[in-house]
Amino acid sequence: MKINKLKKKLTEIFMNYKLSKTHAKICSDAIINAELVGASSHGISRVKMYCDRIKKKVINPKPKIRLKKISNSIFHVDADNSIGFVAADVAIKQAIKSAKKTGLGFIGIKNSGHYGLSGYYAEQAVKKNLIALCFTNAPPALAPFGSKKALFGTNPICFGAPTSLKVPFIFDASVSIINRGKIRLAAKTKRSIPKGTALDKNGQLTTDALKALKGVQLPIAGFRGSGLAWMVDILSGVLTGSNHAGKVRDPFDDFSGPQNVGHLFIVFKPNLFVGNYSQRIKENIKRVKKLPKTKGTSDILYPGQNKYKRYKKNMKGKIKIPHAILKDFENL
Amino acid sequence: MKINKLKKKLTEIFMNYKLSKTHAKICSDAIINAELVGASSHGISRVKMYCDRIKKKVINPKPKIRLKKISNSIFHVDADNSIGFVAADVAIKQAIKSAKKTGLGFIGIKNSGHYGLSGYYAEQAVKKNLIALCFTNAPPALAPFGSKKALFGTNPICFGAPTSLKVPFIFDASVSIINRGKIRLAAKTKRSIPKGTALDKNGQLTTDALKALKGVQLPIAGFRGSGLAWMVDILSGVLTGSNHAGKVRDPFDDFSGPQNVGHLFIVFKPNLFVGNYSQRIKENIKRVKKLPKTKGTSDILYPGQNKYKRYKKNMKGKIKIPHAILKDFENL
Repeated sequence: MKINKLKKKLTEIFMNYKLSKTHAKICSDAIINAELVGASSHGISRVKMYCDRIKKKVINPKPKIRLKKISNSIFHVDADNSIGFVAADVAIKQAIKSAKKTGLGFIGIKNSGHYGLSGYYAEQAVKKNLIALCFTNAPPALAPFGSKKALFGTNPICFGAPTSLKVPFIFDASVSIINRGKIRLAAKTKRSIPKGTALDKNGQLTTDALKALKGVQLPIAGFRGSGLAWMVDILSGVLTGSNHAGKVRDPFDDFSGPQNVGHLFIVFKPNLFVGNYSQRIKENIKRVKKLPKTKGTSDILYPGQNKYKRYKKNMKGKIKIPHAILKDFENL
Repeated sequence: MKINKLKKKLTEIFMNYKLSKTHAKICSDAIINAELVGASSHGISRVKMYCDRIKKKVINPKPKIRLKKISNSIFHVDADNSIGFVAADVAIKQAIKSAKKTGLGFIGIKNSGHYGLSGYYAEQAVKKNLIALCFTNAPPALAPFGSKKALFGTNPICFGAPTSLKVPFIFDASVSIINRGKIRLAAKTKRSIPKGTALDKNGQLTTDALKALKGVQLPIAGFRGSGLAWMVDILSGVLTGSNHAGKVRDPFDDFSGPQNVGHLFIVFKPNLFVGNYSQRIKENIKRVKKLPKTKGTSDILYPGQNKYKRYKKNMKGKIKIPHAILKDFENL
């Protein structure tokens, strides 16, 4: 489907589910961006889930989002169980505003939901020539080090920085070896997942996506990945007043209440300490790119470059919609 | 050697090398703390190196540390090539002060040196009931993803949070599989390092610590570890006005100039957004600890607990000083 047509379609769907036109557009833009950057696990495959949650009244389509000022730099957002995209949109805009005004924006968000890709919000700050750290928690997927039961989410760590080049530096990686969206997509499209990335519910290695969804994903680097996931849960969950320690509901499987996901955005000016940040970052990237390369590597890429390539390529074409998802759309 | 005796000894050594008594004590405390928490790679094995650098005039024993106020929350420290411990001490104290006053302290440090363990500074903030993120860059040790040459440091990520329990949550992990200090200690004590953690200068896996020091350490989780190392280099190096992208000098091998290491401390109140943080964090830890455990695990530990156990144990005894290091002390 052509991008604009799909964008319109998604906006219509969300408006059918009682979102305002503005909010429906925010959701549509975020979902299509995920498709364009090649993160289809965070794209249209989730639309039905969002609509189902609105129908079951665990996402509020008409949220009264409250923005509480703590200082010129610090704000707290109560998202009133809005769809995550809308809460994150309000929050990143405030973080940008605070950073422009005071040098620094520090924003906690509670009562939110799954907001798609962290990188999408970091990029909004970077486009305004700001540096951003974005944290969010997520439903149980990873077992803490020493346990065989999932409790932490895949809890991504996201960092964006202006580069003074065409492509921004956007690092956005979950602390699980494979992300849950990818397993979900594999399950939906009946493909297997790589070995060594997940355990089934009995603690055995599995390549079966359905079994992996019922089991545990493995964290990167043992106790280090487990510790990073815990850090993100404290920053985005405990600190902000959101659900935490395994209480964030799975948006696909658990309709017993709102997710109450938490996010934390830290946004600041790159020129806070030095006047020549843009030269410095260009020099930094240049030095890395000049290094001798491993066999088969033609260019050392910084985080964000691959994503940008996929975006440019996908912008020229259409977005392929799997049959199952197209059928969903007809029903929504 | 008894702890107090060693403390006095180290203070004397640093005073011999022209540090003020206050600064000498700061260094001595930090180094002994590293020994007590079991991070001997950051402990007494480094004393000779610090003294050598002072002698060769690449560490300034009488620094004029300048603290520049950017706002009530944001400060920039020019450490004037002080020994890293002293710069970090000034900075974390200011970060704590700012956080107590405004909710948030955001401090960049330039012209500093190796400061020991990030967790030591995070813990100082946590003891004042604050949350802390500490970043520092380091001399080349890790190859960026796609390159076979070391450029990033082991660039630790450190996060500390109050727990309302006896032991604070202190996560402090480098993004390399093995830390450089451990390889250095293995080289000094003629032991081998685990397989799969480092390459020699020809890009081959090695367990020989000396060869590993001339080669590259492997980052955790491929592009993820590489991206995290890059993020830390931007946050602590590019942003603060310090050396970056491979220009931080190795303190042991390169006496051609000061290291100009950079650090970034972000410190804030845990009650910024919610009033009941202490109950929430206790609940968080309780839920994790209740999970079913893997075979051989009697207690799921949070980051900081192991360190605390070692600290408690080591506080009761003496600190063992390897012969080679004792000989160093006699000469210093």
